[in-house]
Amino acid sequence: MIESTQNKQVKLWKKLKTKKGRQQENLYLVEGEHLVREAVEKLPERDIQNFILVEEYKDNVSNFPKEKIVWVGEKVAMELAETETTQGMFAVIEKKPAELPQTIHRPYLFLDAVQDPGNMGALIRTAAAAGFEGVVCGKGSVDPYNMKALRGSQGMHFNLGVYEGSLEEWILYFQNQGLKVFGTALDQEAEAYTSIAPASAPFALMVGNEGQGISSNLLELTDSNLYIPLADHVESLNVSIAAGILMFHLYDTR
Amino acid sequence: MIESTQNKQVKLWKKLKTKKGRQQENLYLVEGEHLVREAVEKLPERDIQNFILVEEYKDNVSNFPKEKIVWVGEKVAMELAETETTQGMFAVIEKKPAELPQTIHRPYLFLDAVQDPGNMGALIRTAAAAGFEGVVCGKGSVDPYNMKALRGSQGMHFNLGVYEGSLEEWILYFQNQGLKVFGTALDQEAEAYTSIAPASAPFALMVGNEGQGISSNLLELTDSNLYIPLADHVESLNVSIAAGILMFHLYDTR
Repeated sequence: MIESTQNKQVKLWKKLKTKKGRQQENLYLVEGEHLVREAVEKLPERDIQNFILVEEYKDNVSNFPKEKIVWVGEKVAMELAETETTQGMFAVIEKKPAELPQTIHRPYLFLDAVQDPGNMGALIRTAAAAGFEGVVCGKGSVDPYNMKALRGSQGMHFNLGVYEGSLEEWILYFQNQGLKVFGTALDQEAEAYTSIAPASAPFALMVGNEGQGISSNLLELTDSNLYIPLADHVESLNVSIAAGILMFHLYDTR
Repeated sequence: MIESTQNKQVKLWKKLKTKKGRQQENLYLVEGEHLVREAVEKLPERDIQNFILVEEYKDNVSNFPKEKIVWVGEKVAMELAETETTQGMFAVIEKKPAELPQTIHRPYLFLDAVQDPGNMGALIRTAAAAGFEGVVCGKGSVDPYNMKALRGSQGMHFNLGVYEGSLEEWILYFQNQGLKVFGTALDQEAEAYTSIAPASAPFALMVGNEGQGISSNLLELTDSNLYIPLADHVESLNVSIAAGILMFHLYDTR
């Protein structure tokens, strides 16, 4: 049982609370019983490097691979926690390589510079609920492995592919396979989303930054840009709500 | 200019930061330049009791009724602020009486025990964007005049009617006028929302608590209950995203 917060292993785990640490180690940390149990259920065992647990879970983790469990004291758990009260259950998980998928079976959500971790989590959760295959975080987006974003995704993060990469590349990749890429915009040239019939073929939907929307150079690369007609005197919707409306309308899973 | 945080008026305003104070005084406090300017633009002048401003706005509030402005020092502004950094602009506004509207022209959103202020704000903002006429907060809901909820609504709060009342009463009131009330549920007896054709006639849509959903006694009173089909292994959507998908699908504004 590790009791000291000065322990070398603890110091490495603590690094995973920062974006830089996660990039250097190619690992991320998830916190909380719900998220860790989701990871056990949904990820291949090799993807999880360690489980970090306080003693009280001793009789309650029979389905965790024993050799990967590290028991820690309360102080260490507090040190790793993001929230002020911690359940004392963590997992250290390998980040997947950011390679493009070989075949595309279902739609993808592209995120251009989405900056709020709560929005990032909600977008991932909603994309999974809509049956999307992946979420691609472009330049300027908050780290999807940010602990607040992971909490917001409610473990739905493990239900789809989460990628970080160049959206220019991803747009071209989709278009080269004959798949449509829809942007979202508030300008006059955009089309009302209701004019697009729901389809069961894969496509990509791109949403943008909370304040600025999608950058103009990306908007020029899409096949078409959509807008959601809003009531008078209303400027915009929250990005995760707008994306929810569009994903559930565009993708026909029936 | 009021400089002392012990001033009687300041103490009254501070009371408006609590639910109890808002109920006693039938007033609420909004904070921030964006929200206050929205209030000036959208509310009748008589609804706003006072503007509370720091000196730096002196040359920038020519459209505010002069006799209602109270100038305060930084310390007072800090005392009233909900956020750690304040813009030093507040308004004290009268809560509207919770009477039932005489005629119903557009749809309403009913909220059963929605508890998170962020969700409350997002629901009000999204309902306004979808062109809804009102939001009704039932028993157990967070106070819609909570400062965090007001901030989340981005001033869209002023675009529609916000009511607090008994949802049983409101459901009957709608049904007596021949208007449909849709609940939302996850059970087998609910209907997929996509089986309901968009309509331009008014109706009510009810969503429920973040964990429990709508209470069973209210679900029995509705005309029908809807669900959003989700991908396998996904339990639920955030309530404001679910409501957004349903409101934009059900209400045809074209």
